[in-house]
Amino acid sequence: MPQNKQILLDNRPQGEASVSNFKLVTTETPALKDGEVLVKHHYMSLDPYMRGRMNDAKSYAQPQELGKVMQGGTVGEVVESKSPKYKVGDKVVGMGGWQEYAVVDAEKGYLQKVDTTHVPISHYLGAVGMPGVTAWYGLNRIIAPKAGETVVVSAASGAVGSAFGALAKARGLRAVGIAGGKDKCDYAVKEIGFDACVDYKQHEDAASLSKALKDACPNGIDGYFENVGGMVMDAVMLRLNSFARIALCGMIAGYNGKPVPMSYPQLLLTNRVKLEGFIVSEHMDVWPEALKELGMLVGSGKFRPRESVAEGLEAAPEAFLGMLKGKNFGKQVVKLA
Amino acid sequence: MPQNKQILLDNRPQGEASVSNFKLVTTETPALKDGEVLVKHHYMSLDPYMRGRMNDAKSYAQPQELGKVMQGGTVGEVVESKSPKYKVGDKVVGMGGWQEYAVVDAEKGYLQKVDTTHVPISHYLGAVGMPGVTAWYGLNRIIAPKAGETVVVSAASGAVGSAFGALAKARGLRAVGIAGGKDKCDYAVKEIGFDACVDYKQHEDAASLSKALKDACPNGIDGYFENVGGMVMDAVMLRLNSFARIALCGMIAGYNGKPVPMSYPQLLLTNRVKLEGFIVSEHMDVWPEALKELGMLVGSGKFRPRESVAEGLEAAPEAFLGMLKGKNFGKQVVKLA
Repeated sequence: MPQNKQILLDNRPQGEASVSNFKLVTTETPALKDGEVLVKHHYMSLDPYMRGRMNDAKSYAQPQELGKVMQGGTVGEVVESKSPKYKVGDKVVGMGGWQEYAVVDAEKGYLQKVDTTHVPISHYLGAVGMPGVTAWYGLNRIIAPKAGETVVVSAASGAVGSAFGALAKARGLRAVGIAGGKDKCDYAVKEIGFDACVDYKQHEDAASLSKALKDACPNGIDGYFENVGGMVMDAVMLRLNSFARIALCGMIAGYNGKPVPMSYPQLLLTNRVKLEGFIVSEHMDVWPEALKELGMLVGSGKFRPRESVAEGLEAAPEAFLGMLKGKNFGKQVVKLA
Repeated sequence: MPQNKQILLDNRPQGEASVSNFKLVTTETPALKDGEVLVKHHYMSLDPYMRGRMNDAKSYAQPQELGKVMQGGTVGEVVESKSPKYKVGDKVVGMGGWQEYAVVDAEKGYLQKVDTTHVPISHYLGAVGMPGVTAWYGLNRIIAPKAGETVVVSAASGAVGSAFGALAKARGLRAVGIAGGKDKCDYAVKEIGFDACVDYKQHEDAASLSKALKDACPNGIDGYFENVGGMVMDAVMLRLNSFARIALCGMIAGYNGKPVPMSYPQLLLTNRVKLEGFIVSEHMDVWPEALKELGMLVGSGKFRPRESVAEGLEAAPEAFLGMLKGKNFGKQVVKLA
């Protein structure tokens, strides 16, 4: 059996996460039992939600266990099979974690075959995977936009944000992004098709960012997909129309232990806002429909998602910490083979 | 025609509202035109939403106009009629404003006959009026409780809060109030039937209040009706269960111009909370059903709402400002006749 490099959570962050929280080990992959398959990972996914799980705090997911392989999405290829369901060479998406190989029980474990004819395999971790479905759910099930409305998304050049923009434009909405830096904003407008993108790094406070949003959203904001929290959310809230909807999906700003307050909660009342926090894995019923649309958008070339690719398992911790600080550009993955 | 004392909004508050914002005037009631009725007010309503309208700021309602009679709910008796719809002696609820008499167009104006056989007329401003329907809407349409759940309301001894408690107990839920002071908490438990009531004045910060809520809500909080905002809301949010619902109805703490932040917005995400701000006048479809249930609860004596009664129009500004500081006990009304 091949050797398997793995990254474990060694200790929990005190405040900001650091590379010293992780530990690289090498193990033997165990011999397969009946019903199991061995998957060689081509790519693994790095996602903001992982930071939340590193804390030992009440959250929507169980905390990541200490001393265990970091959990996360993976795509790869079946290289050995003792299950009639999979044969060697099958391309699969799963939750294999931060390691080069995973042994998966074909009955109980999460594993799905994917078609890589038109969609590059890594996109099943991004636009045609969990981040894409996340965008789809927030747009369709929470924001539920009406024709002519304006929707806004933060972290617009990221995996979720870019999928949100592509889906919103496919529906003919006015889609406005918020991102950090000219490059990301240019990409959002020119490559994804956002009508406008506001660079939050050009603004020192919510009032200033809010003014820029007024220009980008002359009819106000009807739907907001929140990936960030903090000042960006405050600025958007100052531009909400009555009966606006907020899909609350991420609050990177709050993950480092210190909660970031919402400055103007009374606007939720005066504008009669509906806000809903959600995690897409609790809404598995929408996945088939969402993945179908996302697969079509990507497969047809209408939506060309961008990726930041780190090379090799050893690079994962640095890439992960960089992503939390917005250093990635598009979906952050790690290439393992 | 009788003389009519009126209270006008003379100038807008700079920060906290004060009696100097109001002006008392005496006018003649004009002669009735065809289709009009003259209503002599018995009681007028004082409500927190009026403070918001005193500002010249974007809100769900048009600002109260300067130099005009303060708007607000009233109950009274038709004393003169040039409409076939009303006869002298009819008891009516309307939006007559802060004055002793109102001339109302029976076709265009808001006026409804009420039955005072079993329900004292003033309650049509409270438990069997806008505040009661507000509680009903938040409980049934936003919180939508399931059997066995725990619901919490702030300002529990007030007009909305007490109606919320009575409705929640009629549904067999665990109902927990939050109120300021031992008297209000005792009333909430002994008279309204709340299972428990927490006195927020015994707590210096949200963490301390939150601990007290843990004892009162051993199974966590599934639904929260928010009348207050600020520290009380923060404390409740720390005890929310997954998939909790928040009906956002009032934020007294924020009405004086300075927004009060929400300290832990990330809990909306980690607990996948649904939050909805609403104003009951935008949901007129529920009023008949809600008023029917509330009228039965009050008429049968199962729900005995408490009132703070100020005497005479001149007392209205002081009573209003006191209510904003929580000095009232139950629904605040002004007796005019």
